[in-house]
Amino acid sequence: MMKQFLKVVKIGGKLIENKQLLSDFLNDFTNSSGPKILVHGGGNKATEVAGKLGFETKMVDGRRITDQDSMEIITMVYGGLLNKSIVAELQSKNQNAIGLCGADGRVLTSKRREVKEIDYGFVGDIEKVNTSFIKSLLEQNIVPVFSAISCTEEGVLLNTNGDSVASEIAIAMSELYETQLFYCSEKKGVLTDIENENSVIPELNLTNYKNLVESKVITDGMLPKLHNCFEAINKGVSAVILGDAGLLKENAIHTKIVK
Amino acid sequence: MMKQFLKVVKIGGKLIENKQLLSDFLNDFTNSSGPKILVHGGGNKATEVAGKLGFETKMVDGRRITDQDSMEIITMVYGGLLNKSIVAELQSKNQNAIGLCGADGRVLTSKRREVKEIDYGFVGDIEKVNTSFIKSLLEQNIVPVFSAISCTEEGVLLNTNGDSVASEIAIAMSELYETQLFYCSEKKGVLTDIENENSVIPELNLTNYKNLVESKVITDGMLPKLHNCFEAINKGVSAVILGDAGLLKENAIHTKIVK
Repeated sequence: MMKQFLKVVKIGGKLIENKQLLSDFLNDFTNSSGPKILVHGGGNKATEVAGKLGFETKMVDGRRITDQDSMEIITMVYGGLLNKSIVAELQSKNQNAIGLCGADGRVLTSKRREVKEIDYGFVGDIEKVNTSFIKSLLEQNIVPVFSAISCTEEGVLLNTNGDSVASEIAIAMSELYETQLFYCSEKKGVLTDIENENSVIPELNLTNYKNLVESKVITDGMLPKLHNCFEAINKGVSAVILGDAGLLKENAIHTKIVK
Repeated sequence: MMKQFLKVVKIGGKLIENKQLLSDFLNDFTNSSGPKILVHGGGNKATEVAGKLGFETKMVDGRRITDQDSMEIITMVYGGLLNKSIVAELQSKNQNAIGLCGADGRVLTSKRREVKEIDYGFVGDIEKVNTSFIKSLLEQNIVPVFSAISCTEEGVLLNTNGDSVASEIAIAMSELYETQLFYCSEKKGVLTDIENENSVIPELNLTNYKNLVESKVITDGMLPKLHNCFEAINKGVSAVILGDAGLLKENAIHTKIVK
């Protein structure tokens, strides 16, 4: 039997901070047919709230440390304010939705990142996605909206990379659905010329990708992101689509990553 | 066919602020058999966070006004921090649970309170409970954990009285289940002597209640609460139990309100 299609869409901080852009995106998301899942990052709102509450953001070697206070703020801002606001806005557009963090329905079980040279604090990597629970929501036409918070077996909430949350969900769900993963950012896709927004590569497979890396067309910042995209493809996701806030519109320019 | 039993349990701010008391209560809640629902208030945490963020709590005639800023803080603190912490702690006790505000799965639809002399702001009264969605969670052995936030048809989040959230859920669910409503507070139940914690009335029906009001044994603060309890009973709830944090323990002293 053909599997049903499923879209997993990740949106980031910049989009969330712009009310009009977010509303337009959520219209496209609502109009997009079939079962779908939304994953959102947090943007600067958590840092802003932390600052107002008098907490300093702790950095070690340029990387953020999530201590107990930071985790509480992340739970408030990402798991509460942003998550519930997105759900309420989807409801206003007649799209039934439910806001989830990893603890809800044991949906994202993670392991705290091992302490080596640096203790990143309450940060984790996903080990298990509760696909049958997600499926039960999708079958009731309810869109799961995930904040990037997971939970250990022992009930500890952990800050988790939003891109990874989206890819782990997409990989796990690809056992049940023909799954496409959408990453929404400020760029229309992978560019051959970083200065030229019109140089989007429409489609990229592993062979093309390796050639473009060898010829140094793709460099730096895009490498880890594309590495993750191909990992998702290798683990069962049908396609990964990279685009900007309009990426769900018909005929939108984007980069499609395939096997 | 006999309906299955269901417990709807409301816990308040004081209990939530005391980590040990909350943990003990959640143990009892986890050990309590059969389908169950938890509703929590917020306590002083929202006021504390609001203060730190530099917002003043606005009062008119001694009543709190929920403006846009307050509603954001309530969504952060009640819908995010407290709600997800309780869910994570239940998971740590091997009780599967899910945190919900009214927008999630359109579970609690409300209407904004009409502006008469005073505009209370983002405050609403529940008009509809999505019982089939709640039932689908209970049938997956997932405990719904509600923060006292509802949502209008138009997708506006509203601050809602926690006791009312619990009673509206209990009333609605009593069509599907033999429903008992538990109100957990600092008192062991309704007292005949406010100074004597041992003067708990074990059972109260409407006739007894009216007699005790006439003879001025029950006065003041208890009247609106008991009025709501009898309303729940009249609308289909089997019993309302008033007790303290230990009210789910076997042989706990409490007041049971019946028809």
